[in-house]
Amino acid sequence: MSTAACRIGLLGFGTVGSAVARRLTRIDPLHNLALTHIFDRRAALKKRRFEHPVCWTDRIDDLLTSDVDIIIEAIGGVDPAVDWIRSALLAGKSVVTSNKQAIAQDGPALRQTAARQGRQLRFEAAVGGSMPIVRAVADGLAGDRIQRIVAILNGTTNFVLSRVETAGGSIAEAIDDARERGFAEADPRADLDGIDAAAKLSILCALAFQLRVDPSTIATRSSGDLASGDFKRARDSGGAIRQLAYAGYDSSRRVLTAWVAPACVRRGSFFARTTGARNAAVITGEFAGDVQISGTGAGGDATAVAIISDLLAIARDRAAIVPAPILSTPAAIVGPSVDRLLRAEAV
Amino acid sequence: MSTAACRIGLLGFGTVGSAVARRLTRIDPLHNLALTHIFDRRAALKKRRFEHPVCWTDRIDDLLTSDVDIIIEAIGGVDPAVDWIRSALLAGKSVVTSNKQAIAQDGPALRQTAARQGRQLRFEAAVGGSMPIVRAVADGLAGDRIQRIVAILNGTTNFVLSRVETAGGSIAEAIDDARERGFAEADPRADLDGIDAAAKLSILCALAFQLRVDPSTIATRSSGDLASGDFKRARDSGGAIRQLAYAGYDSSRRVLTAWVAPACVRRGSFFARTTGARNAAVITGEFAGDVQISGTGAGGDATAVAIISDLLAIARDRAAIVPAPILSTPAAIVGPSVDRLLRAEAV
Repeated sequence: MSTAACRIGLLGFGTVGSAVARRLTRIDPLHNLALTHIFDRRAALKKRRFEHPVCWTDRIDDLLTSDVDIIIEAIGGVDPAVDWIRSALLAGKSVVTSNKQAIAQDGPALRQTAARQGRQLRFEAAVGGSMPIVRAVADGLAGDRIQRIVAILNGTTNFVLSRVETAGGSIAEAIDDARERGFAEADPRADLDGIDAAAKLSILCALAFQLRVDPSTIATRSSGDLASGDFKRARDSGGAIRQLAYAGYDSSRRVLTAWVAPACVRRGSFFARTTGARNAAVITGEFAGDVQISGTGAGGDATAVAIISDLLAIARDRAAIVPAPILSTPAAIVGPSVDRLLRAEAV
Repeated sequence: MSTAACRIGLLGFGTVGSAVARRLTRIDPLHNLALTHIFDRRAALKKRRFEHPVCWTDRIDDLLTSDVDIIIEAIGGVDPAVDWIRSALLAGKSVVTSNKQAIAQDGPALRQTAARQGRQLRFEAAVGGSMPIVRAVADGLAGDRIQRIVAILNGTTNFVLSRVETAGGSIAEAIDDARERGFAEADPRADLDGIDAAAKLSILCALAFQLRVDPSTIATRSSGDLASGDFKRARDSGGAIRQLAYAGYDSSRRVLTAWVAPACVRRGSFFARTTGARNAAVITGEFAGDVQISGTGAGGDATAVAIISDLLAIARDRAAIVPAPILSTPAAIVGPSVDRLLRAEAV
C-alpha cells in the first residue's frame, strides 16, 4: 500500500496537460496523486488561468531536479520531448506520455532506459484515445498470438470522413467544421495523410508482434484528396470510407503488411458504425479470434483518462518491474494493394 | 528480468484446464512458463491423454506443498475451489483463476489474503471470455469515474437467443444445438436464468464501483421461458432479444441498479450485432464516454488466452504489489423495471 502521496510534475499545459491538471486537482483527492509542478514555456501567462497552488516554471531543469516521482510529458513532437523523457528517466522519475511520435520513434530505447533505471514508462494515451488498446494488446491479449490489427486510429480524420458521409459537402468543409469543434489542428495534414495513424500503428507493431518498425516505412495514402465521387461510389456499393490502419504479420516469412489508407468498409460494419472522433480496433488472435474495442479518440478529457490510469498503475507499485521488450526487424514491410483495400470491406 | 522459468501447477483438467495445458506445452516455449504439476480427481485416467511429462496427482496437498510458483484454478464452483485458492495463497503461491462464482463470492477476502501474502490473485478469465474487460475496467479506465456497465456476459445464452433469432425454432431446440457444438453444459439453467452473468456482474461492480455485491442480491429474469411470440414482437418492433447485464451506480445516493434479464435491443446496435457465443460490453465513464469491447465469450481456447495473459503478468514481476481494494456496500440495490428494459433499446 502506498502511504505518501505520489508527487507529479506536468510538462506542457495545452489541451491535454490542462485537462489532466484539472482532474488531478479536483477536490476529491484522486487516489493519492499530488500535482506539484507544472512546466510550460509560457508559465507566467498560463498560471493565471489555474488557481490551484503548484510550482510553475518555464525551465525544464526545475522539473528534472525536483522531488516529483512521475513526470507527465504532454508537449508532443519528437524534439525536445524525447530528450526530456530520457532525462526524466535518468533523473529517476517514471514517465507517462501521450506522445505517439516520440514512442513510435524512440519507444524501444526509452523503454530500455526505463527498465535499466528501475522506473516505468507508460503510454496508454499515445494510441487510441480512451480505448485502452495499449493494455489490451500488450497485456490482456499477451497470452494469444496476435496475427492482425485493423483499426481507426485518427479521430480527426474519422470525424471528417463520417461528416462528409452524413452531411455531404467537401473534405475542406468538413475540416473547417472539425476545427470549429476543436477536433482538428490548424494544419490537419498529418492526420489526413496518415502520418499520425502510422506512428500509432508502429507502436502497436512493437506491442503485438515485437517488431521495430520505423513509422516512416509504413505506406500511407492520404484521405485528404478524396472527392465527392469517391464517397458516392462507396455509398452506391453499400459501403462507407474510413481511414484504416492495417498491420498483419506473417511470422514464418517475417513479412509485415502495414499501411494507412482510406478504404471502403461495408455499411453497418463495426468500422462504418464508428463515426465522429471515435477510434476502433479489431485485434485478431490465433486462439481468441477477434477482439473489438472502441472509444473516444480525441479531446483532452479522454486523453486525460488514459494518462491518469497510467499514473495510478505506477502509484500502485512504484517498484514494479516492466522489462523492455526484445524487438526484431521484419524481413520485409509490404504496403497496401488495391486487392487488400477491397478486402477491407470484409472487416 | 526473470531468469528461472516460472513453475506452474494446474488444478483441473477439463475443457479449460486441458486447453491451458496444451498451450503451455507447445514446442515454442511460451515466455519461460513451465507447467510442472497437474491435479485432477481422475489423474490416473487423464494422464494417458496427455503425453507431456508433468507430475500428475489426485491429492491436492501434493500441489500445495510442491515448488510451483503459480497455481491455475480451473475446477470451477465455490466448494472446494475457494478453500484451495486460499490454501494456495497461504502456501506462498500466486493464483490465476477462471472461477467467477469463487471470485464473485469470496474475491474481496481472497484478494486481501493475496496482498497480505505478497502474492497475486488474477482472474481475467472469470469475466468476458477473451475480451480483456477485467483489465479494461480495473486498470485501463481506472482514471475515469465509471458510471455504468451494460454487457452481454454469458456466451451460452447469447448463442441460444441469437440462434432462435436467425434460425427460428424454440429455446429448447437452440439449447440442443448449443450442446452439440459444445457451447452449453448438460444443464444450462445457470446460464439462461442469469446466475452466471450475475456472478460476473458482481465482479465488475467491485472493479468499477468498489462495491461489495453478493451476486444473489442481483435481480435476474430468466431467458429460458421466452416464447416465439416474444421474439416475433421484438422483431416487429425493429429489435432483437439479448440477455443483458446492467450495473449503474449513483454514488451520491449510494444506489446501485443491477440486473440480468432478457431485453429488447435495437436491430443493428452493438448488442444486436453480438451474435453466437460472443460477449460484449459498453463501459460508460464520466470523462471518456462510452468504451465498447467484445470478444469470444466461451470455449477452452479463448479462456486459455485470458489465463495465460495473467500468468505472463505474474511471471514478468513476481514481486509486484497488487493492493486489495477497499470496498463499500451500496445503501440499496435496485432491480429492473419495465421502463428500464425498454430503455435498453437505446444501447
